[in-house]
Amino acid sequence: MTQISQRGKTIFASPFRKYLPLADAAKARGVDVIHLNIGQPDFPMPANTVQDFRWTGPDFVPYGVAEGETALREQWCRYYEKFDIQVHHGQVLITTGASEALQLALLAIADPGDEIIVPEPFYANYNGFCQIAGVNIVPLPSSIDDGFPLPEMDAFASAITDRTRCILLSNPNNPSGKIYPPAHLEQLLRLAVEHDIYLLIDEAYSEFVYDGFDFQSILTFRGADQHVIVADSVSKRFNACGLRVGAMVSRNAEVITTVTNYSRLRLSPPMLAQGLANSLLQTGPEYFESLREEFARRRQIILDRLSRMEGVVFHAPEGAFYILARLPIADSEHFSSWLLQEFSHDNRTVMVAPGTGFYAGEGCGLDEVRIAYILEPQRIELAMDCLERALAEYPQRTIQETTAITGLK
Amino acid sequence: MTQISQRGKTIFASPFRKYLPLADAAKARGVDVIHLNIGQPDFPMPANTVQDFRWTGPDFVPYGVAEGETALREQWCRYYEKFDIQVHHGQVLITTGASEALQLALLAIADPGDEIIVPEPFYANYNGFCQIAGVNIVPLPSSIDDGFPLPEMDAFASAITDRTRCILLSNPNNPSGKIYPPAHLEQLLRLAVEHDIYLLIDEAYSEFVYDGFDFQSILTFRGADQHVIVADSVSKRFNACGLRVGAMVSRNAEVITTVTNYSRLRLSPPMLAQGLANSLLQTGPEYFESLREEFARRRQIILDRLSRMEGVVFHAPEGAFYILARLPIADSEHFSSWLLQEFSHDNRTVMVAPGTGFYAGEGCGLDEVRIAYILEPQRIELAMDCLERALAEYPQRTIQETTAITGLK
Repeated sequence: MTQISQRGKTIFASPFRKYLPLADAAKARGVDVIHLNIGQPDFPMPANTVQDFRWTGPDFVPYGVAEGETALREQWCRYYEKFDIQVHHGQVLITTGASEALQLALLAIADPGDEIIVPEPFYANYNGFCQIAGVNIVPLPSSIDDGFPLPEMDAFASAITDRTRCILLSNPNNPSGKIYPPAHLEQLLRLAVEHDIYLLIDEAYSEFVYDGFDFQSILTFRGADQHVIVADSVSKRFNACGLRVGAMVSRNAEVITTVTNYSRLRLSPPMLAQGLANSLLQTGPEYFESLREEFARRRQIILDRLSRMEGVVFHAPEGAFYILARLPIADSEHFSSWLLQEFSHDNRTVMVAPGTGFYAGEGCGLDEVRIAYILEPQRIELAMDCLERALAEYPQRTIQETTAITGLK
Repeated sequence: MTQISQRGKTIFASPFRKYLPLADAAKARGVDVIHLNIGQPDFPMPANTVQDFRWTGPDFVPYGVAEGETALREQWCRYYEKFDIQVHHGQVLITTGASEALQLALLAIADPGDEIIVPEPFYANYNGFCQIAGVNIVPLPSSIDDGFPLPEMDAFASAITDRTRCILLSNPNNPSGKIYPPAHLEQLLRLAVEHDIYLLIDEAYSEFVYDGFDFQSILTFRGADQHVIVADSVSKRFNACGLRVGAMVSRNAEVITTVTNYSRLRLSPPMLAQGLANSLLQTGPEYFESLREEFARRRQIILDRLSRMEGVVFHAPEGAFYILARLPIADSEHFSSWLLQEFSHDNRTVMVAPGTGFYAGEGCGLDEVRIAYILEPQRIELAMDCLERALAEYPQRTIQETTAITGLK
């Protein structure tokens, strides 16, 4: 018998997708499954982009350079000016999604057995990226009870060992929706400089900020240029998830060179998508304003509905388009699969992402689920009808009588 | 000071690309650099494909499923019928190029410290893929002197240890152009079954076969379905290198499941490119016939010219579009950079890939370079003029008076 590798047997299973077979089975039974599990909005892309997209290159599609097309890298720099970020194109590498940016950055800065400090909850796939790189996540807990703040600097400092290579987080945070205040980011930077470790920040949701919260890119802080690496993506902000175009940005020339060497192994990012991404990055501010307004509306529906459900605790998200809610359940994996296998309401159910996937700490997230508020309001309402009914019917419901909301401005 | 990882400092540098800065510098001096270094043909894609490509999906570009679009996977199966390969779409995973197929397969079948047996010379980037996966290449030498045959089964058997997880090779072989006879493949399969290891075969060049040589896909041999994994790609056969669409094919359900789990971490292959790849796979046989004819013509020019150069040894390639030639030089890295930095003929020079990158064995490939015969005949002639002159002028030329050709039918 041939064998699967040990790592293959234990590879982190995506919480966004691992119950898709159950969703497919539910659909096969005629059940309408509302997908709250994945950050896949349904807004149109900026007008005259994807439908009008034409390949304008030669009559074949050559490899591009590994670093990405220069025109696209330059366009990315111009796009960054709106965030007061000054970088030149040699500091921007185009990657096959932000996922690749993170994976290549980890390879460049950490060896097997090294440690990466990650405040949790965090974007679930960091678990898988770190497993592939052979590096260990050292999670620092933050709690829904006080709105998922950045852990105290003392907690970071205590977690740093001689194997620590970086602190990794997303800002705005997926899944918590937290936006980290500039003052906290600055403290983090000082800590990174003091201990000579990197800050690897995933800013894929930088356009999605609500209620006047203040997002500031880590690239706007100067004086720690050697320590900062950003992963970015066109996916969310342009409703272009399937393009697979992202970027890794750093002013550290050695990081750029090393990641370039890694990126040459896969030859080039996808060329058709790079052409389209270049057009997308030229989108005017009205597009984002209307997106933000619409997401804010959807967010409000979720907040209103959740606040009327007994035993549900949540923090009002400040950015991105997710909410990580505590439910009166003891096992979010069981609840997530139960929703797809055993529950329906008006022949309809919801698919959520179990909270466990967003933590590395043992036993964390068991009573939480991540909900993406990406669907049209009517679907969100139907989804909330289902969730409300499901919580009432769920046989393993725990007794938890208070509803709590934190962080509403 | 922040640090680059040890692996990052020693990452395998692509022999196809590492001298690109020298090529750019030469171009900046006004020198015409003829690129023989990379397998990037200049043929048009099948008519009415890339120029007429339109996105036909919704008005945004969603994530696809990690495994690739079902329609594309089904189309790949239909394409395979021409090679007498019967697989169903559940045995085909779409990947971001064959490079990703190989990397994910390695993760699924081998743990850090495991061993992969690779006949050398081999596709250079296997070095990098194995370094990322933390697996060790155990090279089995084959020599230009007898035309790069598959090593003897005894050599494979002796190399197998309890850490061996697979035998990896490309067929047709890049860089040697060797096509492995079906009888040898069958022996290899028996060996794999006997030792319960995988055969991972890269068939990206399956359409490029000359002189009536017999290519047979490893997928046509049955009775060892659990042991066979194929990496494939639309890149070369459709002049679509920049699409970044490949496939991993296996009848081993556990391998498929494990690679699917890994592939979910990067969410989906590029969606625009998958649509175009689907059209490409429907291309009729005339397209490949005309490509093969034209490559055969270019190959003949190279063979004629090299055979008139003193001290040059080569094996006539049976497939793919590369030739690995032994030159009267002692250090192919030095020669490759010298060509770009110090040599020109009629204000023109050539960029080649140094042979060292195609070996894992210490000191191998020092007197070899890989030449891609992908350019139009006139450019190839000019390139050969340069190479001939360069060998005459090269100050470190070794004394080697015989010219030898092997394998010409």
